Amino acid sequence: MGRPRTPLLDRERITATALRLVDETGDFSVPRIARKLGVQTGSVYHHVDGRDGIVELLREHISAAIDPGTLDATPWDAAVEAWARSYRAAFAAHPRVIPLLMTSPVRAPRVLAQYERAVGVLLAAGFAPAGIMPLLIALENLVLGSALDLAAPETMWELTVGAPTPRLAQALAAVGDGRADRAFDVGLTAFLEHARRLRTGG
Amino acid sequence: MGRPRTPLLDRERITATALRLVDETGDFSVPRIARKLGVQTGSVYHHVDGRDGIVELLREHISAAIDPGTLDATPWDAAVEAWARSYRAAFAAHPRVIPLLMTSPVRAPRVLAQYERAVGVLLAAGFAPAGIMPLLIALENLVLGSALDLAAPETMWELTVGAPTPRLAQALAAVGDGRADRAFDVGLTAFLEHARRLRTGG
Repeated sequence: MGRPRTPLLDRERITATALRLVDETGDFSVPRIARKLGVQTGSVYHHVDGRDGIVELLREHISAAIDPGTLDATPWDAAVEAWARSYRAAFAAHPRVIPLLMTSPVRAPRVLAQYERAVGVLLAAGFAPAGIMPLLIALENLVLGSALDLAAPETMWELTVGAPTPRLAQALAAVGDGRADRAFDVGLTAFLEHARRLRTGG
Repeated sequence: MGRPRTPLLDRERITATALRLVDETGDFSVPRIARKLGVQTGSVYHHVDGRDGIVELLREHISAAIDPGTLDATPWDAAVEAWARSYRAAFAAHPRVIPLLMTSPVRAPRVLAQYERAVGVLLAAGFAPAGIMPLLIALENLVLGSALDLAAPETMWELTVGAPTPRLAQALAAVGDGRADRAFDVGLTAFLEHARRLRTGG
């Protein structure tokens, strides 16, 4: 299955090139990576486990920017909040990678290990096993949606004379700066409040 | 500024071609649309207001699939919930368009009108104006993150012998089918609970 048999440096160059392509164009392909690196397409396949393998290298690369210490915080809700904030920051640096990673199965061992730790935090806090993945996925949806929103322009709604929207204008004038961070705070607060009640059966 | 001066059909063909390109490749360009339609690049510019204009055509096209009747439901939280569910379904059909639309300013009059109605629902329900955009954006982050998740494979975590993750395996076994829908329900429930408390000062 084409297990990598070459120095780490080559996989790092492939990862960096794939990331640059996705940042710039929204996608990558093995032939385009090869062209950028000035090698034959076949050479790239010698270093990585095909296109899916490169997706997993991207996942590991971006997830490595999530502070692993956050999940050690106590109590559990402080750990979840700190992890979510670090997770959002890591992905906000590469918003165009988000749809690629969200629609490919997670295979990267280091990333699976991070899910293992997050599940462990919630199990140790007393959550029922059946509820843990829905909670974690709901949190990821919020985190990754919000990471995309961080890449949006600060003036996201361009009101025009031709489209009278007085109430939207009022709401936008009232919110002021930092709307993306304030929205993430609202979503994260809502999530944590819900999770605390769920845990205590409230 | 290049206002369209041609039949609607031409803009519809440009929109459909751009959408197909984004669905397939994650992005579009005016020259690629022209090639697909067998016309000169300059001809495309005669019909639309440049690249930004095409982004807005895509926004209008996808937003047109959101059921406009949802925002008429009563009480306000039934309207918000129905709107969020219809919004998610509309964007789940075109997940790769999500990052494109989330990172470009909203100018399409019909889409601005939909925000105007959503803001109106929350104002009429008694929410403070300063809190309305953070609420709506938090809801959109959840909706669009979840729309991306709907495009993910049902088996999203591929556990391997090389990466022992017993707690993740336990949590995945316990959740069963329909994890994406269950996660969206968790996130939406958390959001609505928070909004209800916020409204009543609880």
